[in-house]
Amino acid sequence: MLGVLGGMGPLASAEFMRRLTLLTPAERDQDHIPAVLWSDPRVPDRTAARLGGGEDPLPALLRGIRGLEAAGCGAIAIPCNTVHGWFEAMQAATPLPILHIVDAAAAELARLGVPRGRIGVMGTAGTLAMRLYQQRLEGRGYECLVPTETEMARLVTPGIAEVKANRVAEAHAPLAESARALAARGARAVVLGCTEIPLGIAAGPPLPFPVCDTIDALARAAIGWARGA
Amino acid sequence: MLGVLGGMGPLASAEFMRRLTLLTPAERDQDHIPAVLWSDPRVPDRTAARLGGGEDPLPALLRGIRGLEAAGCGAIAIPCNTVHGWFEAMQAATPLPILHIVDAAAAELARLGVPRGRIGVMGTAGTLAMRLYQQRLEGRGYECLVPTETEMARLVTPGIAEVKANRVAEAHAPLAESARALAARGARAVVLGCTEIPLGIAAGPPLPFPVCDTIDALARAAIGWARGA
Repeated sequence: MLGVLGGMGPLASAEFMRRLTLLTPAERDQDHIPAVLWSDPRVPDRTAARLGGGEDPLPALLRGIRGLEAAGCGAIAIPCNTVHGWFEAMQAATPLPILHIVDAAAAELARLGVPRGRIGVMGTAGTLAMRLYQQRLEGRGYECLVPTETEMARLVTPGIAEVKANRVAEAHAPLAESARALAARGARAVVLGCTEIPLGIAAGPPLPFPVCDTIDALARAAIGWARGA
Repeated sequence: MLGVLGGMGPLASAEFMRRLTLLTPAERDQDHIPAVLWSDPRVPDRTAARLGGGEDPLPALLRGIRGLEAAGCGAIAIPCNTVHGWFEAMQAATPLPILHIVDAAAAELARLGVPRGRIGVMGTAGTLAMRLYQQRLEGRGYECLVPTETEMARLVTPGIAEVKANRVAEAHAPLAESARALAARGARAVVLGCTEIPLGIAAGPPLPFPVCDTIDALARAAIGWARGA
């Protein structure tokens, strides 16, 4: 049984469950992957904790992990990029393997035909400040471009907030503009490194360059785990 | 915290989580409803159990309910109509209130401007054979029309199976044809009384008469519970 630590945000978690289902080869209910989704949107804001001295989310995260352990799960997927800043602390606190979303993104980039080189990485201000993607991908031959501070303030941060407030259609234009700016600066692909971003990007016409959807990427990693288990 | 006993099927459960999120007035993650989704697609087939002497699903349902109790949930929603044939047995086995999907559908019909009268009810062969909707709605002034046996075999049962096999687009034509046939026989509204059916219906152009989507209906009932709790 797969454990999904979600609610960050809840729409991204629901979409993760949808993609997990749609990407699983199945002919009937009983062919699908059993999963428990712990969707607790009350987890303190991850970016505020990292950048502004906001409340530590770790105790709430560990409550969710305890719940997934008690449910009998065999591995944990977390459809939120920023929370992977607490990956080591979470992994140290549970015997269950946690699937790392940046590893899943790297596998997805390779699947998209971009196994190395210059890529764009969009994400929350917290994810970018922690250099989550850079730390894990630069050793594998990737060079990560990120939005400028102006692009973050004008496009990415407001776009993510629109999705969290259920205004998905309104999120498309600013998020797509930020992705296009990264491609214009030489990115061969753009990682949508916050699980709200693919929801906004999907609400408009497709972009003319490869995008790495971290919801799909994590769903494929989870399906791979379930097949091997 | 809301408990969701799901996986029947898993795409309908994921869509329930999506609608629960999108129908909740919210400006940020922390405004959304905490929920645990127990998505176990291995629950034995409900229609086969009811009609063909298939394996009893009750033990698997009770395992899910025990899991939701242990997670600290305060109420249970089950986005599967057929399983409500075991409603009394489940409710007798847990102190948590279970929101009945047919009551939620009745509230949705009233919201759609159809508080009584002749309605169509689509569902699995199991749901229709158990007269789940007729039993609960006929005392409230509704008259329920159901698909003919030929329509069930040619349109409804194959349409539901397409959704469970992830072929959502292919499910639209047969399910919409069955809904239109009920409207042509005098139904003022059609209840999509199997949570796979709204997924197929939504994959094509909207129908020209009111349809009661039981995923939305149950999501609204759950939001009502969370607001009152």
